[in-house]
Amino acid sequence: MSIRIGVIGTGWIGEQHVHRLTNVIAGAEVVAVSDIDLELAAKVGASAGARVVDTAEKLIGDPEVEAVVVTSWGPAHAEQVLACIEAGKPVFCEKPLTTDAADGRRIMDAEQAFGRRLVQVGFMRRYDAGYRQMKRVIDEGGIGTPLIAHCVHRNAAVRESYTTEMAAKDSAVHEVDALRWLLGEEFASVQTVLPRRTAKRFEHLRDPQIFLFETASGARVDVEVFVNCQYGYDIQCEIVGEEGAVRLPDPAAPAVRAAGRVSVPVLHEFGDRFTDAFDVELQEWVGRVAADEVPLGPSSWDGYAATVVTDAAVQSLHSGVIVPIDLGERPALYA
Amino acid sequence: MSIRIGVIGTGWIGEQHVHRLTNVIAGAEVVAVSDIDLELAAKVGASAGARVVDTAEKLIGDPEVEAVVVTSWGPAHAEQVLACIEAGKPVFCEKPLTTDAADGRRIMDAEQAFGRRLVQVGFMRRYDAGYRQMKRVIDEGGIGTPLIAHCVHRNAAVRESYTTEMAAKDSAVHEVDALRWLLGEEFASVQTVLPRRTAKRFEHLRDPQIFLFETASGARVDVEVFVNCQYGYDIQCEIVGEEGAVRLPDPAAPAVRAAGRVSVPVLHEFGDRFTDAFDVELQEWVGRVAADEVPLGPSSWDGYAATVVTDAAVQSLHSGVIVPIDLGERPALYA
Amino acid sequence: MSIRIGVIGTGWIGEQHVHRLTNVIAGAEVVAVSDIDLELAAKVGASAGARVVDTAEKLIGDPEVEAVVVTSWGPAHAEQVLACIEAGKPVFCEKPLTTDAADGRRIMDAEQAFGRRLVQVGFMRRYDAGYRQMKRVIDEGGIGTPLIAHCVHRNAAVRESYTTEMAAKDSAVHEVDALRWLLGEEFASVQTVLPRRTAKRFEHLRDPQIFLFETASGARVDVEVFVNCQYGYDIQCEIVGEEGAVRLPDPAAPAVRAAGRVSVPVLHEFGDRFTDAFDVELQEWVGRVAADEVPLGPSSWDGYAATVVTDAAVQSLHSGVIVPIDLGERPALYA
Amino acid sequence: MSIRIGVIGTGWIGEQHVHRLTNVIAGAEVVAVSDIDLELAAKVGASAGARVVDTAEKLIGDPEVEAVVVTSWGPAHAEQVLACIEAGKPVFCEKPLTTDAADGRRIMDAEQAFGRRLVQVGFMRRYDAGYRQMKRVIDEGGIGTPLIAHCVHRNAAVRESYTTEMAAKDSAVHEVDALRWLLGEEFASVQTVLPRRTAKRFEHLRDPQIFLFETASGARVDVEVFVNCQYGYDIQCEIVGEEGAVRLPDPAAPAVRAAGRVSVPVLHEFGDRFTDAFDVELQEWVGRVAADEVPLGPSSWDGYAATVVTDAAVQSLHSGVIVPIDLGERPALYA
Repeated sequence: MSIRIGVIGTGWIGEQHVHRLTNVIAGAEVVAVSDIDLELAAKVGASAGARVVDTAEKLIGDPEVEAVVVTSWGPAHAEQVLACIEAGKPVFCEKPLTTDAADGRRIMDAEQAFGRRLVQVGFMRRYDAGYRQMKRVIDEGGIGTPLIAHCVHRNAAVRESYTTEMAAKDSAVHEVDALRWLLGEEFASVQTVLPRRTAKRFEHLRDPQIFLFETASGARVDVEVFVNCQYGYDIQCEIVGEEGAVRLPDPAAPAVRAAGRVSVPVLHEFGDRFTDAFDVELQEWVGRVAADEVPLGPSSWDGYAATVVTDAAVQSLHSGVIVPIDLGERPALYA
Repeated sequence: MSIRIGVIGTGWIGEQHVHRLTNVIAGAEVVAVSDIDLELAAKVGASAGARVVDTAEKLIGDPEVEAVVVTSWGPAHAEQVLACIEAGKPVFCEKPLTTDAADGRRIMDAEQAFGRRLVQVGFMRRYDAGYRQMKRVIDEGGIGTPLIAHCVHRNAAVRESYTTEMAAKDSAVHEVDALRWLLGEEFASVQTVLPRRTAKRFEHLRDPQIFLFETASGARVDVEVFVNCQYGYDIQCEIVGEEGAVRLPDPAAPAVRAAGRVSVPVLHEFGDRFTDAFDVELQEWVGRVAADEVPLGPSSWDGYAATVVTDAAVQSLHSGVIVPIDLGERPALYA
Repeated sequence: MSIRIGVIGTGWIGEQHVHRLTNVIAGAEVVAVSDIDLELAAKVGASAGARVVDTAEKLIGDPEVEAVVVTSWGPAHAEQVLACIEAGKPVFCEKPLTTDAADGRRIMDAEQAFGRRLVQVGFMRRYDAGYRQMKRVIDEGGIGTPLIAHCVHRNAAVRESYTTEMAAKDSAVHEVDALRWLLGEEFASVQTVLPRRTAKRFEHLRDPQIFLFETASGARVDVEVFVNCQYGYDIQCEIVGEEGAVRLPDPAAPAVRAAGRVSVPVLHEFGDRFTDAFDVELQEWVGRVAADEVPLGPSSWDGYAATVVTDAAVQSLHSGVIVPIDLGERPALYA
Repeated sequence: MSIRIGVIGTGWIGEQHVHRLTNVIAGAEVVAVSDIDLELAAKVGASAGARVVDTAEKLIGDPEVEAVVVTSWGPAHAEQVLACIEAGKPVFCEKPLTTDAADGRRIMDAEQAFGRRLVQVGFMRRYDAGYRQMKRVIDEGGIGTPLIAHCVHRNAAVRESYTTEMAAKDSAVHEVDALRWLLGEEFASVQTVLPRRTAKRFEHLRDPQIFLFETASGARVDVEVFVNCQYGYDIQCEIVGEEGAVRLPDPAAPAVRAAGRVSVPVLHEFGDRFTDAFDVELQEWVGRVAADEVPLGPSSWDGYAATVVTDAAVQSLHSGVIVPIDLGERPALYA
């Protein structure tokens, strides 16, 4: 009675999702995996008792596969998601949906032609308990109309392959999606500000960065991205409304009183912070697929918007000026 | 490939576990349910696609049932668990393991005769993330040798059927198990203290109560149980060692600044507080059963100890004096 | 226009108060000091431009001295306070008012004979901002009728001269006064409980200790005193009422995120924690003396009660049983 | 032996300072007051036993007056401070030092001609315990080199007379001084950003506002000013360095658990938040004057810098673009 899932891409996040679908999520079974690295695919597939299929295309076309999880590298997402839509199969695609905004439009066109939503994009913060509680507070009028959001996104450190553009494309993209969702409106412009750079960095990397967004209604969202902050993985968010403010809670942790201090640990890894969110996200998606219902999570439109907004942020990074954002009309399918 | 489970007792917690095993836990399937209320059993069974079996005995004997979850009322637990052991089937029994300490001894005898552990008792706090983090801090020497523990166990309100003895047997029993586990030693005596009683109470109910335990090493554990505290469900625990102290975190929740206060919600329901712990607990148990391994969770010995300790607390409630606790020797099976 | 004050005893707290009255408090001037160590008296006196008087008696009788601060060692307090009353001079006496309860009665008799309050006892916690805010919450009905109080009193370490009896007499005495004041009622019994002792201790010292008080109305107050807790000076207090609970705040301190932890410092010294309370306490006292009004702070009755209650705690320490407390009737002067 | 002080201006803050110098601060005496409202001056003077002098000039020239506190309205400050310098008398001037940057230069010229510092400007945040603890953390290297500061300055509400320009000149000016001091460097540019405005406002008022400063070293400071936030007076500040971050503590307040929430009060009034800072500030100033030492607090240079920086913020408010800030050379007297 479990949903039979194929997973494309068995790198870090792919392996995590295979494990999750096998050992944590109810009602799912990974039956096929593929990866350009066949050896890796074999190892990960074996851990779940799943067959290895030698290409993404074959996996998508495999009659046993009822739904697809795309965890390949970003540039491959667009074609794989389009193939899933063509096959009429529900697809969960890790972010980014596409690396090019035009591809996002192609996906939306295909999905509209198909006539119903097939795609969910993996912005897991919408499934984090803290963010969900914040959203409830806002939606229930607990802070009045939102006017300002202050966000912080810090990693202890990143690998040398992390580039200056990735602060927007890989890091702030999470805040972009989360704030679009929390505020319930689109972003209209962005300005990238470059503070004094940390000396704890690679020569090629501009770190930290601050992104200043303006929404359609004029609300302001500032996002500090600091990916070599040394001390831990730290996500903060405060939303200020006309009547109050609400703050994302830090993860619960026991306070230790010792050696002259009261302290709580800061998480070190991104994965630790959002493990539960990933579980909830995929459990919901599996349940919706099993019930033959359209997904509730982030849509192709959300994936497309995130790409357009972070493209604009990169443009401002290079130009130093405010860059307007134009998403075009939101198709009715994504209302 | 899922484990086929039978659930005895489809009241509140039974229904929750049926739902959990069906929709949340990976690798489990509820195939049979039973309850003295057959109509209730039918309703809950239907939600999971499980057959209704008309007695606990038949369910335990059902060849399709590979493992049993006992969520019937307390007095029935002993015979049902014994029947599971006789049938050689793994059994997860909600607390209390038995309502009578002598029955606990019978279960341990049967399990020892069988030759390996079959029983896990449902003390879910050992699976709560906060308690587990505390245990790690203690085990890693973060506070030195524990000397004192301060515990608080408050409910917003209880039903009229809640009796004075239940403060020990139903409420403090959770702290008894959690602290035996956290401190890694047995309780040696208990004194029940009766503060001024709240006027927000039933005539028959002595509320709040304080239990003062001494452990084998002389550490002291005080537990305030206050089941009509009005304001919410609130579990607190601080353990003080020779070099520091560690405190159970409150559940993470967003702080709202509004109307002159910074506030976070307190949970109202016991279930909300330990939902994740129940999930982790049953997922681990299912995984161990699937792997044909003995359970890692609380054992018959733990269930027995909890009964003996809370019996002594009730005795002290009535006598007003310190009551020594004698558990006897711990069988090697539970070392 | 300043009040001219004489200070008896220029040890640690005496020197602090001389400094405070000279450099921090408005409207006061230290004109005379005395101490059995004349050299010390000379040094401290010089810092304030005050004369050294060679005995306490002469200082009290000195016509220039309008009010007296007693900061000599405890056993000398009774006679010095009695001499002040005889001289009709307002006296601020550091705790303990007396080391013997009978002397407390003598002081109350003398004060009643004089016809108005002249004595204030130095229980500074009543002047701590946190405790005062707690009292306001309780008095405004914010938690309903108090039923239970949980208190913690920890020092990083004490000197070898600290004895087992001092846990009650020198440490818990602060909680005794603070809780009598917060709850607005007297203590009726006490039981001293001895947890496993810390290995970080002197051979002669029983540490930690727990005191269990019952008030006249049946409320319960538990006080953990742990004077070699290693990690800092830490005062905690939670009061639980029929409708809620209120907790003493930790001192405000900046949270630092560094090296994998969020931490705030714990104070190390008792003095740091209550510096502001001492300032407020003496400023109020000076203002009342200047206005020729009776003191608002802890009275002879409060000093007497603290001695009786902590005497009983020491008795329970030795006997191991619950010791009833009988303060007798409270004289009308202290209503 | 007290310092004899004259106070110019007996409005809200003047009255507070007269009270403070009389009843809270050691070693000070207010001997003369003046105000354009003679009746008000008489009332406030009487409360301190001080003479009323009919003009500021006469008060400054009064031979009994040893030091002057200027709490008149802003536009009058420059001439009064210059008169104090001419008279060679120490002067404590509430912010702003001057409303016009050129006047600030005149004051510095006069002070340099006099040859030593006579002026202290009333930026009291430097005396707030929380800010001082933050400064200690930074100065001791607890967060590494500062890169970014996030500040929030919210009032529950302001009067109708509050103008859009005052967000910079009256509100953010406190953050300007505090951050110059915390970071130990000057501000180099400012950009004023206007979020969606709150509907809980006056028609004429643009509220909230965000100020983005860049320092000489490239560090970034963002300051949200929101003066009709409804919920209370709330000052937040986080400084992020290469190795960690430090956050200004909220004022300590007792947490109340009641009615389904854990809550602490937010202060309502600005005065409540910084009462202690005002006390410490004036006590230090009085002590320095008494010892015939130059003041330790904010100098004419600091007052001048604050005016130049906030002038630039207002300019950016109107122009919408980044405005560079040029303070010129800092005179050696203010090194």
